Amino acid sequence: MTFADASALERIGDNGWAGEIQPGWDILGNANGGYVLAMAARAGVLASGRPDPVTITGHFLAPAGAGPITIDTEVLKEGRRFATVAATVRNGKGRALVAALGSYGELTAFEGPERVEAEPPDLPSVDQCIKVVATDTLPPPFMANVDLRVHPEDVPAAVGSSGYPRVRGWFRWAHEEALDTIGLVVAADAFPPTIFNANLPVAWTPTLELTTHIRERPESGEWLRCSFHTRFITGGFLEEDGELWDEDGRLIAQSRQLALLPRA
Amino acid sequence: MTFADASALERIGDNGWAGEIQPGWDILGNANGGYVLAMAARAGVLASGRPDPVTITGHFLAPAGAGPITIDTEVLKEGRRFATVAATVRNGKGRALVAALGSYGELTAFEGPERVEAEPPDLPSVDQCIKVVATDTLPPPFMANVDLRVHPEDVPAAVGSSGYPRVRGWFRWAHEEALDTIGLVVAADAFPPTIFNANLPVAWTPTLELTTHIRERPESGEWLRCSFHTRFITGGFLEEDGELWDEDGRLIAQSRQLALLPRA
Repeated sequence: MTFADASALERIGDNGWAGEIQPGWDILGNANGGYVLAMAARAGVLASGRPDPVTITGHFLAPAGAGPITIDTEVLKEGRRFATVAATVRNGKGRALVAALGSYGELTAFEGPERVEAEPPDLPSVDQCIKVVATDTLPPPFMANVDLRVHPEDVPAAVGSSGYPRVRGWFRWAHEEALDTIGLVVAADAFPPTIFNANLPVAWTPTLELTTHIRERPESGEWLRCSFHTRFITGGFLEEDGELWDEDGRLIAQSRQLALLPRA
Repeated sequence: MTFADASALERIGDNGWAGEIQPGWDILGNANGGYVLAMAARAGVLASGRPDPVTITGHFLAPAGAGPITIDTEVLKEGRRFATVAATVRNGKGRALVAALGSYGELTAFEGPERVEAEPPDLPSVDQCIKVVATDTLPPPFMANVDLRVHPEDVPAAVGSSGYPRVRGWFRWAHEEALDTIGLVVAADAFPPTIFNANLPVAWTPTLELTTHIRERPESGEWLRCSFHTRFITGGFLEEDGELWDEDGRLIAQSRQLALLPRA
């Protein structure tokens, strides 16, 4: 199923939207957080009438199983350049799953001086990276919907794994579909946790909050060149900093999430 | 006036708070964004009964002048470890100034393995840095409430300015007052814009969104060792990535904001 179909929404009432968390977009039964947040982003786009999420933050309140959802939206500002929308995703029982706050606009309407103090991540070619294949457990079913090719140095089981809390790789949809700015919210949360590569006794790192800045529309090439790394594992938390670049070497999006380390 | 006094709130009704944006906390007449967002964080602490903002995002909707404000809060989740609160700051006319979404908890309740792949910013001693002195224009009146000492390489007018879009320096309150986790939200937005140091034709960079992760309580030493830098000035936007460390070399907070470059 394409992302467009899996995240489709219909209007219910003045400030509400209905959709369905599809089976198969999950990690051990819980829907990928980026996927659920992207549905909130779609609700924000629809509620605001603006085409692009520019910056969107999600707080993850409860695990999301497959099934019907509703999204309540509140347009907090309608400005010339941006609209700001709060959105709450709830399951069929009314339980809040994700709270989102985003600003929406038309990304192509902005310009200014350019200066980049960074390089795209250094990746082997797509064919030289390791494809993540979905299983019933881990890697999760979600991986059947995205096509991830991970740098061999960043695969825990691979010979030559760096042991550094970093994951780099290529991203595209698994099914033929153009990536849009809503889909970027999924791409920012699609890769395995950085910490899996760091030889620490951690089974999972639940995300508390994820913020993605969309800097450009992903209109160049089929693949995104991605990098996620963690610099601070402290106090029971870690951050994951993401960069998503296009094939022309333009930064498309930046992300940062705050995740929890399970208690010892 | 101390930050505690300048950001004090009183309850009005079940889900509302009243306070006042104080004169003198402004940049050219508009209150510092971190200061207004910190008032939303205080409302979140009060509404949730949790002592610390853990991750808080603000979207800046309108310039905030001095005067009375109200803050509406909605507690979206009350969990064992975290509560998540949406807060909207409005001025006396009911206009929304800042929309905030935060998760709150008790930071000292968490622990886990530790691994840090970073160093605190390299700064000259406080006395060897350049104190930012408030004026009626720029540097703004706000600088009378914070005590900023900026790395000489990061002061545009100084001999030896690097031209790199970065600001590093020391932070404490100007008036004798312990810094708490709510105050960190101000510290994350207190320094001059990184781009002032980059020799670009830009007068101001309005913040669209600011997210701060509070990683530890700032309980060690008087000063924070801070660094803010910008890697991507593209498409009419720039990000500012901040790190706030204590005097013992512990990361206290990370921040990232998305700001606009004024249209050419």
